[in-house]
Amino acid sequence: MSKPLILVTNDDGITAPGIQKLIALARQIGEVVVLAPDSPQSGMGHAITVGDTLRLKPNQMFDGIEAYECSGTPADCVKLAKHYVLKPRKLDLVLSGINHGSNTSISILYSGTMSAAIEGAIEGTPAIGFSLCDFSHKADMSHVDEWILKIIRETLERGIPKGIALNVNIPPRQQEPLKGIKICRQANARWEEEFDRRIDPHGREYFWLTGNFINHDKGEDNDEWAIANNYISVVPCLFDMTGHHVISRLNDDWDI
Amino acid sequence: MSKPLILVTNDDGITAPGIQKLIALARQIGEVVVLAPDSPQSGMGHAITVGDTLRLKPNQMFDGIEAYECSGTPADCVKLAKHYVLKPRKLDLVLSGINHGSNTSISILYSGTMSAAIEGAIEGTPAIGFSLCDFSHKADMSHVDEWILKIIRETLERGIPKGIALNVNIPPRQQEPLKGIKICRQANARWEEEFDRRIDPHGREYFWLTGNFINHDKGEDNDEWAIANNYISVVPCLFDMTGHHVISRLNDDWDI
Repeated sequence: MSKPLILVTNDDGITAPGIQKLIALARQIGEVVVLAPDSPQSGMGHAITVGDTLRLKPNQMFDGIEAYECSGTPADCVKLAKHYVLKPRKLDLVLSGINHGSNTSISILYSGTMSAAIEGAIEGTPAIGFSLCDFSHKADMSHVDEWILKIIRETLERGIPKGIALNVNIPPRQQEPLKGIKICRQANARWEEEFDRRIDPHGREYFWLTGNFINHDKGEDNDEWAIANNYISVVPCLFDMTGHHVISRLNDDWDI
Repeated sequence: MSKPLILVTNDDGITAPGIQKLIALARQIGEVVVLAPDSPQSGMGHAITVGDTLRLKPNQMFDGIEAYECSGTPADCVKLAKHYVLKPRKLDLVLSGINHGSNTSISILYSGTMSAAIEGAIEGTPAIGFSLCDFSHKADMSHVDEWILKIIRETLERGIPKGIALNVNIPPRQQEPLKGIKICRQANARWEEEFDRRIDPHGREYFWLTGNFINHDKGEDNDEWAIANNYISVVPCLFDMTGHHVISRLNDDWDI
């Protein structure tokens, strides 16, 4: 059997340590092609480049791996890989990450890492976004290998339903080894924003977005609980955002 | 009873005709504050500004209306309004749009218009994104008034469940009047991308993202069907992206 064709991308940019780790793991399993942003794209959500041009350049960073850097967003990278660079090769898996920082709970909406994975799912390709819950680019990633390999193998061998991308978060390295994997729902948590108002040298005001993460969730079946208890969280994510349970309620309540 | 406090924003920028129409309608119902991007932000998805500063400037465009323009994304605008500009006033409704162009089906993921509405829902405020299925900034919007007023009033009077934002799409002006409102699910459709490869004057290649919208959905309860049949579509949208029905399947299938 031929090796699966795996696209690796991320949102921290092609030079980030996280993508290097993910490439090293993915090449143990399949034929890897890298197409990643040429600069950091954190917080880009599911942005795509519609009013501007895209640049694409071959990259020689990874020994023996076909790699490209792109001026666009993570979602652009997946589109460009699937519909231009890899054409007509059949893509078997999209991997995004390893993100430097958590993408649990509501952060999935703002996450460039997950937008690449969700773009893969939209295109009908199994897709996984990996994030390490440690923002440092120097974070110890020595505990992730066996688990990431396991999740990639389960995804390729047993599959995930169409229309689903996996949001995988991994606790930071601790003294205790990781306890295992939990299939979770997205926790009910959000950012409580604050704006840090400052004055520039020309006397004009500007703002930095800042804030605190507030977890309102009291359950144990969610990704925040899993990470807090040293489990890897795996949340199956939809791109159908319809609140199906609300349709009948609006039809009942509203005078239309 | 005091008038409801309504934030109006958009993704086409504060000078777009669509937001002017929405402001004119919203002020018939409530006290309006405008905080919108100072330039077009289409395709920004749920991007937020994390690595850069935000600028905020008072804007005098709208007679008798408190208005601001912001250098950030639509999601930034909602955060900045709620947590800085309007504080400690209680915000009753977030309105986003009227977008110049459709945001049906999968486009919700890429839509700056809907990211502002979803940001409102995350913050616990009822929120509606309006889009007119006509990309022209000169589009005839004379058919939308009564329907937008009706949807705003239903939302304020009868409410929508917590955690839900409404994605409202309005067919372009046609000879026949609009047939009414349909509460819908997001259609199963997607963009089939193509990349238009060109060479710049310096001999370097670049790409334009282009493509065709492909509707795979055969049902009649979705937003694409509604628009094609001259109904206004209202899709209740979640920010919980968990595929809850998949959790048990992964727990069964996977060896974890």
